[in-house]
Amino acid sequence: MAPVLLVYAHPYPSRSRANRAMLEAVADLEAIAVRSLYDLYPDFGIDVEAEQEALAAAQIVVWQHPLYWYSVPGLLKHWFDKVLVRGFAFGEGGTQLRGKRCLWVTTTGGDEQAFSEPGIHAHPMSAFTPPVHQAARFCGMTWEEPFVLHGAHKIDAAALASEVKRYRRRMESLAREAQK
Amino acid sequence: MAPVLLVYAHPYPSRSRANRAMLEAVADLEAIAVRSLYDLYPDFGIDVEAEQEALAAAQIVVWQHPLYWYSVPGLLKHWFDKVLVRGFAFGEGGTQLRGKRCLWVTTTGGDEQAFSEPGIHAHPMSAFTPPVHQAARFCGMTWEEPFVLHGAHKIDAAALASEVKRYRRRMESLAREAQK
Repeated sequence: MAPVLLVYAHPYPSRSRANRAMLEAVADLEAIAVRSLYDLYPDFGIDVEAEQEALAAAQIVVWQHPLYWYSVPGLLKHWFDKVLVRGFAFGEGGTQLRGKRCLWVTTTGGDEQAFSEPGIHAHPMSAFTPPVHQAARFCGMTWEEPFVLHGAHKIDAAALASEVKRYRRRMESLAREAQK
Repeated sequence: MAPVLLVYAHPYPSRSRANRAMLEAVADLEAIAVRSLYDLYPDFGIDVEAEQEALAAAQIVVWQHPLYWYSVPGLLKHWFDKVLVRGFAFGEGGTQLRGKRCLWVTTTGGDEQAFSEPGIHAHPMSAFTPPVHQAARFCGMTWEEPFVLHGAHKIDAAALASEVKRYRRRMESLAREAQK
């Protein structure tokens, strides 16, 4: 069983540049199992049991996606609603995620300056973290420092390659720790 | 044309108590047009053109839903992603929502104490507002003070009736101002 479950949610995989490069850089790691939601469920018919099984088997849960309207894309939000339910993820008997580590990986079109009070998004990135962070926490997961790549639309090839390397190192280190 | 567009998103309409009572209390107002997303699009196939037309025709946009994982339910998030797009809601030529007023109406299972630092949700409700608020703002809409009903699971009939009245008054007042 792969100890790291990477739940990938890109609404337009073929238009992706940064997320795709990041995904490709880690998908071959033996410790990682990838579930690409928009490929698996183009019509939003999530197989809740399969998703819960994959979650239960993992030690580390990664949510990777481009930031859409300051949050997760629609299908990943639907996945939260359908998969992270009472009796599985919280409430009575809902202990399946407890103690797992959770890493949020997201890319933004806007650069870091855009995510500041004077910037066009009017808030630092940290203002948009609580809903995702608290969802993980409510399920008893340990929150890792998020991996955020800003400026995904305009990042040049060299900077992207460097970020991709940084991502792979991060995932390798998570995987090593999980296998201990 | 109804000046108030109420976009309603309850994943399980038949299980709803608070949201349904609130919706029923305002749905007969002439000034209000209701679009119930989970009824219109049970399979998530949003008619983007119809949604955009309804938005363009309105003066006031209301998003009403139970809070799911500290955010909008999956289908409403998908609606954000598909309907509020560049060229319509922002970016070049994307001025269709500019100057409209936006009211966020949400109900939570947890009571107000649950939404506090020592509470089970670890944050005040205001910590979960930025993604929704900033989405409205990025589209050029004016943000109204949100209408939040806490404790929807346990609220007694009298308290619910009083909240429902408060909601109807709020909507009547919005509608009156829109028709000026």
